[in-house]
Amino acid sequence: MPTVGVVLSGCGVQDGSEIYETVLTLLSLAQNGAEVVCMAPNMAQKHVVNHLTGKPSEEQRNVLEEAARLARGVIEDLDDVEAKDLDALIIPGGWGAAKNLSTLAFDGTDCQIHPELERLVLEMHEEGKPIGAICIAPAVVSKILEGKGILVTIGKDAETKAAIEKMGNDHKDCEVYDICVDEQNKIVSTPAYMLAESIDDAFEGIDKLVKKVLELLEG
Amino acid sequence: MPTVGVVLSGCGVQDGSEIYETVLTLLSLAQNGAEVVCMAPNMAQKHVVNHLTGKPSEEQRNVLEEAARLARGVIEDLDDVEAKDLDALIIPGGWGAAKNLSTLAFDGTDCQIHPELERLVLEMHEEGKPIGAICIAPAVVSKILEGKGILVTIGKDAETKAAIEKMGNDHKDCEVYDICVDEQNKIVSTPAYMLAESIDDAFEGIDKLVKKVLELLEG
Repeated sequence: MPTVGVVLSGCGVQDGSEIYETVLTLLSLAQNGAEVVCMAPNMAQKHVVNHLTGKPSEEQRNVLEEAARLARGVIEDLDDVEAKDLDALIIPGGWGAAKNLSTLAFDGTDCQIHPELERLVLEMHEEGKPIGAICIAPAVVSKILEGKGILVTIGKDAETKAAIEKMGNDHKDCEVYDICVDEQNKIVSTPAYMLAESIDDAFEGIDKLVKKVLELLEG
Repeated sequence: MPTVGVVLSGCGVQDGSEIYETVLTLLSLAQNGAEVVCMAPNMAQKHVVNHLTGKPSEEQRNVLEEAARLARGVIEDLDDVEAKDLDALIIPGGWGAAKNLSTLAFDGTDCQIHPELERLVLEMHEEGKPIGAICIAPAVVSKILEGKGILVTIGKDAETKAAIEKMGNDHKDCEVYDICVDEQNKIVSTPAYMLAESIDDAFEGIDKLVKKVLELLEG
């Protein structure tokens, strides 16, 4: 039974991991026979957003504690996870990927990556282990693997496409129900809520991504 | 296309709606062609629990604002929803159902029900519209429909079974992947995380519940 790491960044699309993307990833991993290790950085959230109004709140929350909601309490500190513990890695989207796991939301192509995420993704890539990236997360992976000519999708957003290409990587437009596969680098991506108008459309793409990630680790 | 209300109680198993149960309900509703109206009461959460440690926190959070995370911001105040707006109603579980939607966690069979939830469930029941209840939520529905001889399941928990029977209703043991159907009262229940050891087992029961609820509103 393969072990797949899932990197979380809080709990809620506006300031953490996109909840549907995360749960649908966990569902598909379970349905396809994988063990899961959820993880998140132990750090303050950059923002807390009131999801009813869409406006920032004055509250302070911790990324690992909020991500623990999505993992029903079974979660590791990202610092403690190494590539040798995992067969594959998947990163769901949500603004947390662009605000907590990286500064992509603020700094675009000049963004900083959380050093422990950078370490883990580089380790996985060097060991030839598959990486799945959902929604905006492919742009974060693109920054970590800058200049390596990886192929990803974030859907069709012109600005993010341009950013990925400026990072020395390639972008392919993709529909919400489909995936983009870089067979050589073992990187799979899907647009999910970059494009999704319904949860079942998002599941179609995420389920394909999970199946392809698991297929790549057999090869 | 039928419209199904989904009553939320926060965001996280320990102090709100169980996240997996909610998302899996929304997935199945979308896959089976239903429109969804998410709703939650606009009130302070009884507790905020740190899901990493399982311990209570000093924070204060609002049920509707936190539930909005589970609805990607598209959510109604429970006060504003009437049975005439809905074809069916589903209540996921989580401690929020027993702490925010009711005082079941503190008062057992003597619990109070949030008055707007009580109103809406009674309206639905009087209009003969199907009600789905997941995990601990069937015990909340049992309190609202006290003495009416409804049949529900919360799985196999002896204490909760006894409480339901003390409320003048009937309980049937049920496996996580199955449902309990009260055809006459149009009430469907499934144990989910009262018993679930994996997300795919929970989905099997929840998916059956959603399909049965939709089938009942055709009948």
